Amino acid sequence: MAKEKKVTEITDMEVDFAQWFTDVCKKAQLIDYSSIKGMFIYRPYGYAIWENIQRIMDAEFKKTGAQNVYMPMLIPESLLQKEKDHVEGFAPECAWVTYGGSERLEERYCIRPTSETLFCEYFKNAIQSHRDLPMMLNQWCSVLRWEKTSRPFLRHREFLWQEGHTMHATAQEAKEETERMLGVYADFCENVLAMPVTRGQKTDKEKFNGAEATYTIECMMHDRKALQAGTSHYFGDGFAQAFDITFTDKNNQKVNPHQTSWGVSTRLIGGIIMTHGDNNGLVLPPKVAPVQVIILPIAQHKEGVLEAANGLKERLVSAGFRVKLDDSDNSMGWKCAEYEMKGVPLRVECGPRDLENGQCVLVRRNDGEKTVVALADLEQAVAEQLELVHQGMFAKAKKNLEDHIYEAHSLEEAKRLQEENGGFIKTMWCGELDCELKMKEEAGMSSRCVPFAQENLGDVCSICGKPAKKMIYWGVAY
Amino acid sequence: MAKEKKVTEITDMEVDFAQWFTDVCKKAQLIDYSSIKGMFIYRPYGYAIWENIQRIMDAEFKKTGAQNVYMPMLIPESLLQKEKDHVEGFAPECAWVTYGGSERLEERYCIRPTSETLFCEYFKNAIQSHRDLPMMLNQWCSVLRWEKTSRPFLRHREFLWQEGHTMHATAQEAKEETERMLGVYADFCENVLAMPVTRGQKTDKEKFNGAEATYTIECMMHDRKALQAGTSHYFGDGFAQAFDITFTDKNNQKVNPHQTSWGVSTRLIGGIIMTHGDNNGLVLPPKVAPVQVIILPIAQHKEGVLEAANGLKERLVSAGFRVKLDDSDNSMGWKCAEYEMKGVPLRVECGPRDLENGQCVLVRRNDGEKTVVALADLEQAVAEQLELVHQGMFAKAKKNLEDHIYEAHSLEEAKRLQEENGGFIKTMWCGELDCELKMKEEAGMSSRCVPFAQENLGDVCSICGKPAKKMIYWGVAY
Repeated sequence: MAKEKKVTEITDMEVDFAQWFTDVCKKAQLIDYSSIKGMFIYRPYGYAIWENIQRIMDAEFKKTGAQNVYMPMLIPESLLQKEKDHVEGFAPECAWVTYGGSERLEERYCIRPTSETLFCEYFKNAIQSHRDLPMMLNQWCSVLRWEKTSRPFLRHREFLWQEGHTMHATAQEAKEETERMLGVYADFCENVLAMPVTRGQKTDKEKFNGAEATYTIECMMHDRKALQAGTSHYFGDGFAQAFDITFTDKNNQKVNPHQTSWGVSTRLIGGIIMTHGDNNGLVLPPKVAPVQVIILPIAQHKEGVLEAANGLKERLVSAGFRVKLDDSDNSMGWKCAEYEMKGVPLRVECGPRDLENGQCVLVRRNDGEKTVVALADLEQAVAEQLELVHQGMFAKAKKNLEDHIYEAHSLEEAKRLQEENGGFIKTMWCGELDCELKMKEEAGMSSRCVPFAQENLGDVCSICGKPAKKMIYWGVAY
Repeated sequence: MAKEKKVTEITDMEVDFAQWFTDVCKKAQLIDYSSIKGMFIYRPYGYAIWENIQRIMDAEFKKTGAQNVYMPMLIPESLLQKEKDHVEGFAPECAWVTYGGSERLEERYCIRPTSETLFCEYFKNAIQSHRDLPMMLNQWCSVLRWEKTSRPFLRHREFLWQEGHTMHATAQEAKEETERMLGVYADFCENVLAMPVTRGQKTDKEKFNGAEATYTIECMMHDRKALQAGTSHYFGDGFAQAFDITFTDKNNQKVNPHQTSWGVSTRLIGGIIMTHGDNNGLVLPPKVAPVQVIILPIAQHKEGVLEAANGLKERLVSAGFRVKLDDSDNSMGWKCAEYEMKGVPLRVECGPRDLENGQCVLVRRNDGEKTVVALADLEQAVAEQLELVHQGMFAKAKKNLEDHIYEAHSLEEAKRLQEENGGFIKTMWCGELDCELKMKEEAGMSSRCVPFAQENLGDVCSICGKPAKKMIYWGVAY
């Protein structure tokens, strides 16, 4: 009994992008709602994408010398309050534990919204000498922020992430670490997720609470809105002073170490969906797709077809690909639509005639391109096609990014360009908060970043007309 | 400047086993205390053991067809209350969230002490037809239980674990799953951790809140106390009824599915320490040791020694071993003691004379055995020696287990045997709670399990003298 799912249940993105996004999340079984608003269930298919992200990224972290740890999930209120800017930013969105069993706690504890304070408490004990530095730690966990609004993957009250926390002997080393980790994120987004990024620095207004500087990678979604995909923070020795963390340097002096933190979250999955997806559903980057290759036997009741399809599967599994064979009774049309919707990067079709001719057909998810390949060359052909899928996805996303960066020389022009085209609007900027607030208020755009790749678009701030200090990107962000 | 650490700072286990355990946890830098009582910090070396456990065990889970998910960490009180026995067991040790930001919540939420209720809420939506079954899910996360006492790895308020939750069409299939997963745990403990286990069923008194049956693997620690190392629960359709989870079976009837759950935690690391450790510190099973091989160059300032040692390291890393080379200025004596304390399974010593002779020396951590091997055979010799370390550790632990199972025919005898020898005391049992309570009260022992491997020690209950139903193991447990 063929169960006919209708992929047409996914709203067209041109009709309603937000609804399209929600439809894809639900239909592809990535995520589900729980009984608490803003707290989501990561379903097997969605979680498997995260597992692949974790595996690849964790190996990159370890190459830099970072080690994983696990800190408690609760922070005593007094500990959270030790760094003033930090607590001001996070306290309003903390969830508070006030009872342990039937006993009212003497001090309330918040569920970690981020763990700088916990790591600092640990650093205070663990760091004594310059020989203990650098200390580079990371943890994979969930954090909780009591947000008022929520959207799958983009804004959860509880979300999965990793947070790296490092301490260094000098400001210079800490700054290098901040930049190194931003580079790890940028390379990961581009080389693994096929998501091109813009690298830059956040303005003081947009930087992390308690940081001296925040660096960011900003991606452009299909609807030309911006997604902040990862951030890396330089703290100087602010937390170290607040937490009285010191080490004995080579001259036998007690000094404060310099600190960084850096994080990415399951937001990246939201980025994947909105960068690559289309009206048929998900399009997954091959390197993190839970299933890279779906094998669909044609006329599978005919003698030898299923056996041959299973043989192909075994060969591809042996070659290290993540492969699924669907030999269910569902129709070929249903199956094709189903795995397109699920974003499987490559489809292998093999029927009696193909097998007779010693060949099969590979179909790419991203552009529908079909390639007939000799069965003898299957492993190599699949590897090549998956690489082409990645390249094709990256090129398309890169074009979307590059085609929608617009130059403006006045607030009015910036506003008009955003309204007409979306995307990033680049202007010169004086560096003052007032102009940033004005852009937000009048054009609805936040500053995305001051790109590392600066261009000189003129001498004056496009908003106030005073002398310009930097070129900046504005946009409407998730 | 050689920094001399004193391994003698570890208390002898014969003097004070509990203090020995704490010393090892601290000195080997496995774990640290945080500012909240009972909430511990998993340090890099301790967490790396957990990562190895996770990696190996997760692959075994996936072979059975289980998929990973992530459920929210908060449970609304009304959801926790849906299954009566379950809430009675867990509510007294829940931590409660009552505020989100500055707003008092209308309903309070507990931080998950375990997630049966959350999974059931999900199953209710995700399961409609017999085609959706079996549904076999797992999550790696932390849970929180507001315990009054705590000890590193053995009893935390927050601890890391995995919890599998599965739903099946029939009771038979669910029971098979319960047993299969207990088998996965038992094999893992024996084949990976070198910890021999006793497999059996928990009594009604000791079973999981809300379960119909709980199966367990019980290990014997070096001090002859018992450690419950993993459990697997059969729920029947109790939760399914309470949560109104139904599916349409092949006859088009709506029926309740049958459920299991199963879990192990970072307690396993406590088990490793107390099963294998000695007065010099940790002894780690090779398969989960963060560093499997430590290379110590002798007279490393002499020409060619360090280069040769680095060459050996590269060869072993290429062969897939986890290897560290210590070329610090610390003395050879310090280094040997340090890596013994850290439980590194195998030490490679290579000095100028060894290298001249084309050989090096391998030293096993578990029994100190030295083997001279030709450099040409290094990879194979290391693999063999690591296997011998595993076998030696398993054999020693197995002997400790088997030597300390004592047969008793009265409560007095059981009590005396426990006081004199520790270990497991096996008796016949009528199956009544009264006798179990009496054994606890008068001999200080809890029932560990009714072993699958039953023996007939007589016809009557050793406690009350009424007809016996089963042979049971008693012990003093962590």
